[in-house]
Amino acid sequence: MSRQGPSVASLDALFSPRSVAIVGASADTAKWGNVLARRALAAGGDREVLLVNRGGGQVLGRPAHVSAAAAARAHGAALDLVVLCVPVAGFVGAVGDAVDAGARAIVAITAGLSEAGPEGARVEAEGLALARAAGAVLVGPNCLGVADTTTSLQLAHAVLPAGDVAVLSQSGNLVLDLADLLDRRGLGVSRFVSLGNQADLGVVDFMRACVDHDGTRAVAIYVEDVLDGDAFLAAARALREAGKPVVLLAPGRTEAAVRSAASHTGSLTSSSAVVDAACAAVGAHRVDHPTQMADLLAALRAPRRAAGRRTGIVTDGGGHGAVAADALEVAGLQVPVLTEPTTTALAAGLWEHSTVTNPVDLAGAGEQDVASYARAVAALLASPQVDAVLLTGYFGGYSKEETDLAGPELAAAAAMASAVAAQDKPLVVQTIHPDSPSMRLLRAAGVPVHRDVDRACAVLAGLVEPATRRPEARVVVAAEPVTDTSYAASRELVAAAGVAVAASVSVTGRVGLESALSDPGMAYPLVLKATGRLHKSEGGGVVLGLGSRAEVLEAYDDLVARLDPPAVSVEEMADLGEGVELIVGCVRDPRFGPVVMVGLGGIFAEVLGDTSCALAPVGVETARELLLSLRGAPLLLGTRGRAPVDLDALSDVVARLSVLAAAHLEIAELELNPVLAGPGGVLALDARVVLG
Amino acid sequence: MSRQGPSVASLDALFSPRSVAIVGASADTAKWGNVLARRALAAGGDREVLLVNRGGGQVLGRPAHVSAAAAARAHGAALDLVVLCVPVAGFVGAVGDAVDAGARAIVAITAGLSEAGPEGARVEAEGLALARAAGAVLVGPNCLGVADTTTSLQLAHAVLPAGDVAVLSQSGNLVLDLADLLDRRGLGVSRFVSLGNQADLGVVDFMRACVDHDGTRAVAIYVEDVLDGDAFLAAARALREAGKPVVLLAPGRTEAAVRSAASHTGSLTSSSAVVDAACAAVGAHRVDHPTQMADLLAALRAPRRAAGRRTGIVTDGGGHGAVAADALEVAGLQVPVLTEPTTTALAAGLWEHSTVTNPVDLAGAGEQDVASYARAVAALLASPQVDAVLLTGYFGGYSKEETDLAGPELAAAAAMASAVAAQDKPLVVQTIHPDSPSMRLLRAAGVPVHRDVDRACAVLAGLVEPATRRPEARVVVAAEPVTDTSYAASRELVAAAGVAVAASVSVTGRVGLESALSDPGMAYPLVLKATGRLHKSEGGGVVLGLGSRAEVLEAYDDLVARLDPPAVSVEEMADLGEGVELIVGCVRDPRFGPVVMVGLGGIFAEVLGDTSCALAPVGVETARELLLSLRGAPLLLGTRGRAPVDLDALSDVVARLSVLAAAHLEIAELELNPVLAGPGGVLALDARVVLG
Repeated sequence: MSRQGPSVASLDALFSPRSVAIVGASADTAKWGNVLARRALAAGGDREVLLVNRGGGQVLGRPAHVSAAAAARAHGAALDLVVLCVPVAGFVGAVGDAVDAGARAIVAITAGLSEAGPEGARVEAEGLALARAAGAVLVGPNCLGVADTTTSLQLAHAVLPAGDVAVLSQSGNLVLDLADLLDRRGLGVSRFVSLGNQADLGVVDFMRACVDHDGTRAVAIYVEDVLDGDAFLAAARALREAGKPVVLLAPGRTEAAVRSAASHTGSLTSSSAVVDAACAAVGAHRVDHPTQMADLLAALRAPRRAAGRRTGIVTDGGGHGAVAADALEVAGLQVPVLTEPTTTALAAGLWEHSTVTNPVDLAGAGEQDVASYARAVAALLASPQVDAVLLTGYFGGYSKEETDLAGPELAAAAAMASAVAAQDKPLVVQTIHPDSPSMRLLRAAGVPVHRDVDRACAVLAGLVEPATRRPEARVVVAAEPVTDTSYAASRELVAAAGVAVAASVSVTGRVGLESALSDPGMAYPLVLKATGRLHKSEGGGVVLGLGSRAEVLEAYDDLVARLDPPAVSVEEMADLGEGVELIVGCVRDPRFGPVVMVGLGGIFAEVLGDTSCALAPVGVETARELLLSLRGAPLLLGTRGRAPVDLDALSDVVARLSVLAAAHLEIAELELNPVLAGPGGVLALDARVVLG
Repeated sequence: MSRQGPSVASLDALFSPRSVAIVGASADTAKWGNVLARRALAAGGDREVLLVNRGGGQVLGRPAHVSAAAAARAHGAALDLVVLCVPVAGFVGAVGDAVDAGARAIVAITAGLSEAGPEGARVEAEGLALARAAGAVLVGPNCLGVADTTTSLQLAHAVLPAGDVAVLSQSGNLVLDLADLLDRRGLGVSRFVSLGNQADLGVVDFMRACVDHDGTRAVAIYVEDVLDGDAFLAAARALREAGKPVVLLAPGRTEAAVRSAASHTGSLTSSSAVVDAACAAVGAHRVDHPTQMADLLAALRAPRRAAGRRTGIVTDGGGHGAVAADALEVAGLQVPVLTEPTTTALAAGLWEHSTVTNPVDLAGAGEQDVASYARAVAALLASPQVDAVLLTGYFGGYSKEETDLAGPELAAAAAMASAVAAQDKPLVVQTIHPDSPSMRLLRAAGVPVHRDVDRACAVLAGLVEPATRRPEARVVVAAEPVTDTSYAASRELVAAAGVAVAASVSVTGRVGLESALSDPGMAYPLVLKATGRLHKSEGGGVVLGLGSRAEVLEAYDDLVARLDPPAVSVEEMADLGEGVELIVGCVRDPRFGPVVMVGLGGIFAEVLGDTSCALAPVGVETARELLLSLRGAPLLLGTRGRAPVDLDALSDVVARLSVLAAAHLEIAELELNPVLAGPGGVLALDARVVLG
């Protein structure tokens, strides 16, 4: 992916070709060459469509040329786009023929190439070399086609509804799923690219191509492998700066999904937490399934975003309020208790039976006076105590039937639309009556309206402005590569980066040990660690709480007899009762490079999955955010009468370790476990480096 | 709630009355007395409907009687059911009038009673006493009515669609929500009761009334407070034994939902974990919102249940497989790797490009040969390696259009239906084409079909047979009530129940301490604990790792100076490096009585929320299930080279503590924190008892 991106002319030839040839055009409806030929012919317009079949004759009532080159001669000009629907055996020849026809863009449907094994990879590389030598770009192979509804180009497995969402996908069926869901929401597709093997053009090229594409307002991506992390991040940033949200569906939260991706496209999947960190770094939205993707793409059309997660609920009936409160938390949002002056402002617009602390329950006021719904929504939108508002329950039903309340409800909906327009927070609605006149009015005003409360809450969570992490002013200095990963060297490396590491004396024999113990500064209890093992604690390699010289000597002999370590580290035992244990680590992701991770509780961190991570390096501000985003963060802030830990010092350690990892790309893993954080400072009790 | 349940005759009068009087019948469409009078008159049939308005005259074109008693005289017989739509000031008088009319059942819409405060509660009690003295049952007050579609009774705020789901609810608007969702799924309501204040008849009475009700096949409940836990459990068990699933929507997973319920109905909400434990005890299904409730009620109509959480995925396209794998895990299900002989059986029915390890990806085989979908589904249903099957993606689309594949797809769907019928595991389908002929066929065969993958997965999770916990053979012996909650007494209580507790010497002065330290069996390091405080560790009340006599003496003096405790406990410090710390506790829930809870990691357990609980007492089998259901369970089973803990001994401790709590209903909280579990046994390092 180090080559220059495709030229504007190449992309024009691909998305807005004046001429298209379908190679492998066929009368057999079971073949791709039939489907795509029919799609091309159905489009109409000025575009010249040429069918190619090596048997010649007629296909679909049109003359078939025996080669793309012959088609170009008949056309009297070089072809812009050639689509290859040929078997793998004919792939290289077909690319050569396309090049001979002057093609500037080639879409290769052909399967059985690099995804099928080494021989396929060789054939793919041969075809690619031919295309590149001629300056043509290639989509696929092993793809399902392309479409651009802004130029009436439909050359894919399905005819896609027109709209302004660009869809880039490594899965064909998921695109059918998404297109149907978009269509039901009044949305559609601007450009679609089935990425296939991404032999030449990849997801990043098409993301870049959307930045200045007038017909595209948002980009929906399904990928199992982004290939080039840095380029992906840069393209996502460019799209965001152009005001075009990026919504990413990247499965892999579970081992089964990773397994599936590996067998589907042979992808090297980044850990799901790293994908989250990458999205956070560039303000991209991550979703888990097509319905959530379509819902969010619809909601993101309106300009309102939530600056945070605090949500106010308005309902007329306690049941809906309680259910919504639970659903908001499942979606990762908060329902804070409201206080003065918001409660007074709410109470002023409601009756005495209403609850104003959040959920705001009109408790019958809505039925008495439908306008009170709008007053409650407006008061919440105006409150600095919430970042967004959810209206949930019956509202919408009054305008459905011919009752005295129909007019007032429509007026209330109009008042809500005005209130939303007058400020910058989002309102999202869940209602039993999503198709009522009031809801049509709100939807037209850009307010997301949902039938189901979990969908409404997921959309609200998606509208929280992603905290794009500013590149923080941490200079990463290129450093001498690390070569020594011994315990002593690992400790030195970390200490040199400014992280306090517990004192240690490394001994290689009884004599050295006795000499270390004779140091009057050494305070019991002590710890012995056998070095030279990946995880020191495995197999009893760490012995804690040795209260006397005799115990130390006995434990030492036992360690040596059992494990025969290259050296044993003698350390004072930290008082774990006074601090909180954490793990702070960095790993190098194959796609996104160094990533820093924090977790609470030593062995508990991994088992309980309470970790957060960010692309490295991070500054102290991001480090602090990571620490505070842990479920266990209350332990850092002080709980059950414990003093809070020194969060500044802890954030500094995290930031320093991330800078160290970013400066040493030869390091695959860098781990401080445990790190002991207390009120008076932070101390790494262990350090581990793995190269490779 | 200690009184006998309502008689059959009372329930007949309520749900199948021969005569109904609407007291407060009105021409004013804004009033309940208008709505319910119109509903009653619209029903038709043989039922006598009498309108009562103290002004007399005509209402809705019918003569209005000045009282229920007058209506009864005009009718010439005692009335079965009287509905009260009167203001609170007329409540007691109206109950008296209904009794005079011979009413056997009263539905009280009237609001402003116990839910409004002490004066309302007094008025409510006065009315209730009148009704009970006359042998009449009362629904409400502060309710929205009742319905029974099997007897054409519609006396509620909305006309509900007929069906076989009984709906019992403390929320009116949620019922409108649910009824609409049921209707869209071809389901409807058999009986509906708006529970209101449950002054007389409560949710349990109506659950019991559904056990033998022919028209009811399932019971949907929205409650914020079950009032009588034991009666609720017994009624739920009876429904389950009658083959009628109970689906419970009980908000309260979050603090905001609890707050909402408290302000809505003044409910005393059980902790959400306790509600889960109660559902687990009787095999009831808990859901989080109305859509999930309606989906599950639809799915539960078919007889297939999953015996466990292992799910096989079938798809033709890796994208849908990977997305479904993630969605299944979100729903709490598992996607195991498949092995021989299942993989061979799958491979035999598919082509060589297919993946058979799970997700099963036909990888184009489906398009080549639609029957391969059915062969894959059948092979998975037949495999002992999975408990259920999810088909996800495009299947359903071939039969939508007039293509060569339409017939084969219908045949494949029929083959799937046969495969499902021939065994007892469920198949659930997610498809882009839920309304296609193939999907109509599957739906008619009782296979749940969903458009959205998260809905399909939630339903699959709901079809997992709830593990009804058998009452295990633990005899709870009534015991002398505990009165002494000192640390020493708490330790003794637990030790007498057969739980090993770390040795402790309690000292009340320097002399006692020095005497304790002179015991040659006392091994350093030691721990000092200040007693007499709720949480010993707060305020530095526990001092760990005292390595010498001098350190102990210094720490003692400091403890006494700072905290002035009634006594100080001197204990040997357990070697925490060798074991796993847990919390094992019991609390007395206000509704469901004693509950036992286990969690991992001392202070981490609560902060990280990794706890499980069950109604007490439990046997060792349930105790073991609770322990293994923790996210941190791998720590118990051995991880990173650590030996597994003695799970038998640990389960025994949990079971013993639960029996102790069940025998001492005066105990509000009973906590062992930490419990140290190691390979060689289990030791409680602390014990705490709170009465009240």
